Amino acid sequence: MTDTTHTPTEDALVIFTPSGKRGRFALGTPVLTAARQLGVDLDSVCGGRGICSKCQITPGYGEFSKHGVTVEADALTDWNAVEERYKTKRGMIDGRRLGCQAKVMGDVVIDVPPESQVHKQVIRKSASQRDIVMDPATRALYVEVAEPDMHEPTGDFERLVTALQQQWGVGEVAAELPILRRLQPALRKGNWSVTVALHKGNHDARHRILDIWPGFHEGKLYGLAIDLGSTTIAAHLCDLHDGSVLASSGVMNPQIRFGEDLMSRVSYAMMNPGGDVEMTAAVRTALNGLVQAIATEAKIVPTSIYEITFVCNPVMHHLLLGIDPVELGQAPFALATSGSLVLDAADLDIKAVNPAARVYILPCIAGHVGADCAAVALSEEPNKSKEMVLIVDVGTNAELLLGNESRVLACSSPTGPAFEGAQISSGQRAAPGAIERVEIDPETKEARFRVIGSDLWSSDPGFVAATSNSGITGICGSGIIEAVAEMRMAGLVDQGGLIGSADQTGTTRCIAEGRTHSYVLHDGTANGGPLITVTQGDIRAIQLAKAALYAGAKLLMDEMQIETVEKVVLAGAFGAHISPKHAMVLGMIPDVALDKVISAGNAAGTGARIALCNVAARDYIEATVHQIHKVETAIEPRFQEHFVNASAIPNAVDTFPELSKIVTLPQVSFNTSGSGGAGGRRRRG
Amino acid sequence: MTDTTHTPTEDALVIFTPSGKRGRFALGTPVLTAARQLGVDLDSVCGGRGICSKCQITPGYGEFSKHGVTVEADALTDWNAVEERYKTKRGMIDGRRLGCQAKVMGDVVIDVPPESQVHKQVIRKSASQRDIVMDPATRALYVEVAEPDMHEPTGDFERLVTALQQQWGVGEVAAELPILRRLQPALRKGNWSVTVALHKGNHDARHRILDIWPGFHEGKLYGLAIDLGSTTIAAHLCDLHDGSVLASSGVMNPQIRFGEDLMSRVSYAMMNPGGDVEMTAAVRTALNGLVQAIATEAKIVPTSIYEITFVCNPVMHHLLLGIDPVELGQAPFALATSGSLVLDAADLDIKAVNPAARVYILPCIAGHVGADCAAVALSEEPNKSKEMVLIVDVGTNAELLLGNESRVLACSSPTGPAFEGAQISSGQRAAPGAIERVEIDPETKEARFRVIGSDLWSSDPGFVAATSNSGITGICGSGIIEAVAEMRMAGLVDQGGLIGSADQTGTTRCIAEGRTHSYVLHDGTANGGPLITVTQGDIRAIQLAKAALYAGAKLLMDEMQIETVEKVVLAGAFGAHISPKHAMVLGMIPDVALDKVISAGNAAGTGARIALCNVAARDYIEATVHQIHKVETAIEPRFQEHFVNASAIPNAVDTFPELSKIVTLPQVSFNTSGSGGAGGRRRRG
Repeated sequence: MTDTTHTPTEDALVIFTPSGKRGRFALGTPVLTAARQLGVDLDSVCGGRGICSKCQITPGYGEFSKHGVTVEADALTDWNAVEERYKTKRGMIDGRRLGCQAKVMGDVVIDVPPESQVHKQVIRKSASQRDIVMDPATRALYVEVAEPDMHEPTGDFERLVTALQQQWGVGEVAAELPILRRLQPALRKGNWSVTVALHKGNHDARHRILDIWPGFHEGKLYGLAIDLGSTTIAAHLCDLHDGSVLASSGVMNPQIRFGEDLMSRVSYAMMNPGGDVEMTAAVRTALNGLVQAIATEAKIVPTSIYEITFVCNPVMHHLLLGIDPVELGQAPFALATSGSLVLDAADLDIKAVNPAARVYILPCIAGHVGADCAAVALSEEPNKSKEMVLIVDVGTNAELLLGNESRVLACSSPTGPAFEGAQISSGQRAAPGAIERVEIDPETKEARFRVIGSDLWSSDPGFVAATSNSGITGICGSGIIEAVAEMRMAGLVDQGGLIGSADQTGTTRCIAEGRTHSYVLHDGTANGGPLITVTQGDIRAIQLAKAALYAGAKLLMDEMQIETVEKVVLAGAFGAHISPKHAMVLGMIPDVALDKVISAGNAAGTGARIALCNVAARDYIEATVHQIHKVETAIEPRFQEHFVNASAIPNAVDTFPELSKIVTLPQVSFNTSGSGGAGGRRRRG
Repeated sequence: MTDTTHTPTEDALVIFTPSGKRGRFALGTPVLTAARQLGVDLDSVCGGRGICSKCQITPGYGEFSKHGVTVEADALTDWNAVEERYKTKRGMIDGRRLGCQAKVMGDVVIDVPPESQVHKQVIRKSASQRDIVMDPATRALYVEVAEPDMHEPTGDFERLVTALQQQWGVGEVAAELPILRRLQPALRKGNWSVTVALHKGNHDARHRILDIWPGFHEGKLYGLAIDLGSTTIAAHLCDLHDGSVLASSGVMNPQIRFGEDLMSRVSYAMMNPGGDVEMTAAVRTALNGLVQAIATEAKIVPTSIYEITFVCNPVMHHLLLGIDPVELGQAPFALATSGSLVLDAADLDIKAVNPAARVYILPCIAGHVGADCAAVALSEEPNKSKEMVLIVDVGTNAELLLGNESRVLACSSPTGPAFEGAQISSGQRAAPGAIERVEIDPETKEARFRVIGSDLWSSDPGFVAATSNSGITGICGSGIIEAVAEMRMAGLVDQGGLIGSADQTGTTRCIAEGRTHSYVLHDGTANGGPLITVTQGDIRAIQLAKAALYAGAKLLMDEMQIETVEKVVLAGAFGAHISPKHAMVLGMIPDVALDKVISAGNAAGTGARIALCNVAARDYIEATVHQIHKVETAIEPRFQEHFVNASAIPNAVDTFPELSKIVTLPQVSFNTSGSGGAGGRRRRG
């Protein structure tokens, strides 16, 4: 039973699932050919020559009433020698066929499994309508090249290009000299067939051959998505064929020794002739080390890495490129270049990867809002949000995006490294042994906590044993936020950020340190461990950081002429670990219902990965950044006013009605300079 | 008196000569603006800002009846301070004005002198209808760039590009990292004006900034046109603004130590692993030396060289690029790449020029017919000839082109270095002291000659004194051709190439050397000088070389199905010095009326210079080479037959009717093996 009148002996109906695409084909047509003619997404690297096995399909047999077709057992040609050889050598799931070998002999329903699709979904975006499908700039293509003909002379390269154009439908193709040098031996060794790694630039219409191998090349091509932060350089190693992440790794940015935050690095370049060159050399050396390390971890040779995408803030951007960032340290904060860049890895002295590897650096938005913010915009797509969303990428510098499908604003705010555990007396990086969660009983003022590496609370039986390897070593970024917020909720800290004395708070955990007080979170001294306290200085550092963040958000809201936002997205490696409630108690983010605070993980890193896996995303973000309006915090007079108000916990003027529904903050004051100590005593509610 | 009705106070008629373009313009319009709007070719580097002085024009005053206009003395605004300052500083021809300063105040006739035209004619081609006008790929452009605006953030580079697009109408613009590094300081030092060296690729639609200077840059940009031959590397240093040749220089190709001719170099690469790398390094080192030398000679800094064009045969082409030429040594003689190439000079290790300098290598036609032949085709344009023309570029390898506007054929022929004086017993390079012209009296068999460096014949009074500095040192290529041809005409050499004995020829200048004879051209031994003879071996070497050349021409004529050609063009540095009559007596070239044999000088070098000065010529020759059909001499059976016939002087089978009209060759034979010595005696006519 078929859906149109036809002569059964001449052609047959082929239906592909899940696409539902269908068409009639002459008997003997290979399934791959049918798929291509119908525009079905069926992969092939070898061009249908039974070599690569990427075109595996699953034929369905029996009655398919939904499609109005019955598939007979002989609907495809028999399992053939090529398939047998492949299965013996590599293995193949039962019921699978090679689409290039199996030929249509009757009506048939063909399922294309996800792994046989070129445009596999690989990056499921956290807060977005669409998923990212594979469409990488660099892919491996197998071609058979015409042999030279003395009477119709053309270069071997020109014949290779013709083959690529005819067999793969690519446009103009170029090759650098090192590839031209290797071309003739490869063609002859491969008996006029080669595999090339072909790179499609999004700026330049021409493709470029990055590598060439005789015959069919089994090896995989890899790419790196790098989030180059002021403090940390994080990299994801991805398979450029299926988008899978083989390894993720990070190293400290060695530029830290020239200055902890961005402006201190710009100052270093200003004060020290050649300082920018030093910092450029440092970060490039670190990148080479990171490439080696991640390749070793994933057990691949680093020369099989053909692409790198970078996201970074403007100062990191300039220092990576070898451009003196001095102009970024002073108004009008002019970038040397704001557009995206397509480079050779060699231009950046990244030598560990393939010598022909290409680099794509996402565009910057402005002098203080960099490619990292563009990457967040690519990943989170505020420009497609129906709700008014505030996206906060918390790092040494915070990037903020506010907007919806009508308009998007961006700014950056110099939060400093406090949120990352730096400038905190017991602060440390997020690592095993670091306190990451804190709870303080509002009655007893006793604390319990969890450390990275264990799911147990410190009050749980077995906690000591579970943490004996790591110990309890300090407080990481999310831990300090929770600690300060819990201290505020427990009435140990007042709105102004002062820690009360033991007398004022009624707990001996508040100890005097000079003229101020500290709260003892954990005393490990009896066992030779550290005394972990939250000091008045720690509170001040957090106040400065969170006030900068909130003031930035308020500036964007002023520009947008709104009083409240509808959704908050916390991004950044750190953002994923922040408790929304504690962030709001601190007044880090504007008041919003807690279920409207969403964690997006490392959105900048995700943006880098999207740009790595999908070349069209590069065009998309280049167009999108032009529509994002940048607000300059550094010269906006209202920033200072917002900042001062936001120094209070949660805020001196802004009310937090959504927060009030779930948390009542004690009305305490420990400021003894005016009303005396007793007046500050906590009133029990 | 004007040609249209108008209100005299509002606009005026402006007529440009020599173009004849005319139009009405509002009073106060600068002459440069009027020129631009009419499409008149009036130069400007600074964009009309009174800085560069390239827009000088000469206004005409009085009655111009031809144009129907009378020009009053106040037709242009008065000489102004900008012009005064320029004239004081640099000087200016009386009557000249700066087109950007002088404004139209009444009807006026404006002459644009040749040096103020952008598209100056610079290369007058020897045998062609059209002349080459300046349209170089790289030019200096002055631009004023918008200052950064914090509220509308864009990169400095992006604003520079916008300025270039708005002020110079260019398309997409790119810059490499070294330029981006220098961009911000240059813009600020130049108070937001810069001059850039902008390169327009013919493959890539994008322009590229090669250099940048603060403000207006006075310095000139230069280019090199290089003819990379097997034996000699010749370079012309050209001003990229006006096309003038500042210096021409040449060095020996150091690859000679690996083999005198092309095939021996290919053999060296085959027999010695890494041999190709050695030869590549040798030629690149020589190129760096040549760049330094020619820059020193012209008194310019080599970093002001921004472009190099190369022409060369396929083996030189591959060795320059670092590609092993092994495939060129065996059928099917496959080139690694036949297309033109656009590279960085740094890709070829040419370090002496500007670090951003670009290289253009003309396309090859086939495995034995290279970019040098393409350059000859560009210079001589056989494809535009109404006559059937044979173009012979004589070098160590001869390149031949045959055709007319209907069809063009090409081949190469391995003549070897005999025509360049190598493999000749008294042979030497063309240098002072070398015999270049020879006459032998057919009656007395006495010779007279001229040497390079003097216009006197050796029979003239004062010859000895005139040549006392150089001496008489040997025979150069054109000298040996004349000597052998004169010997044939004087009956000293027979059709088979045998030199007769003193007895057979009746002159004691024929001396025995073993079983063969030599002819004494000059005996300097009495004064300690050399004995310069033409030996039987010399005749054999010339026979082999000229037979190869003629056989190549005959193959092309066979393919074209013609018996005679209508014109012969002798190209190559050597071709310029060959006497057409003597070449035809030898049977080097097909029979044609002597006035139809034309010397084109170094046509390959001219082609390189055309490609340097005119970027459109690159597209043109790339399209043209595809229409040139290549004939492969190496595997064509008829080549051998033609070669054997052409070994006779002039030829065993072909008649030379045109030659017969002016020269009667003696019917002599000195072959004593068959009919004995006496039978070979010359019969006097």
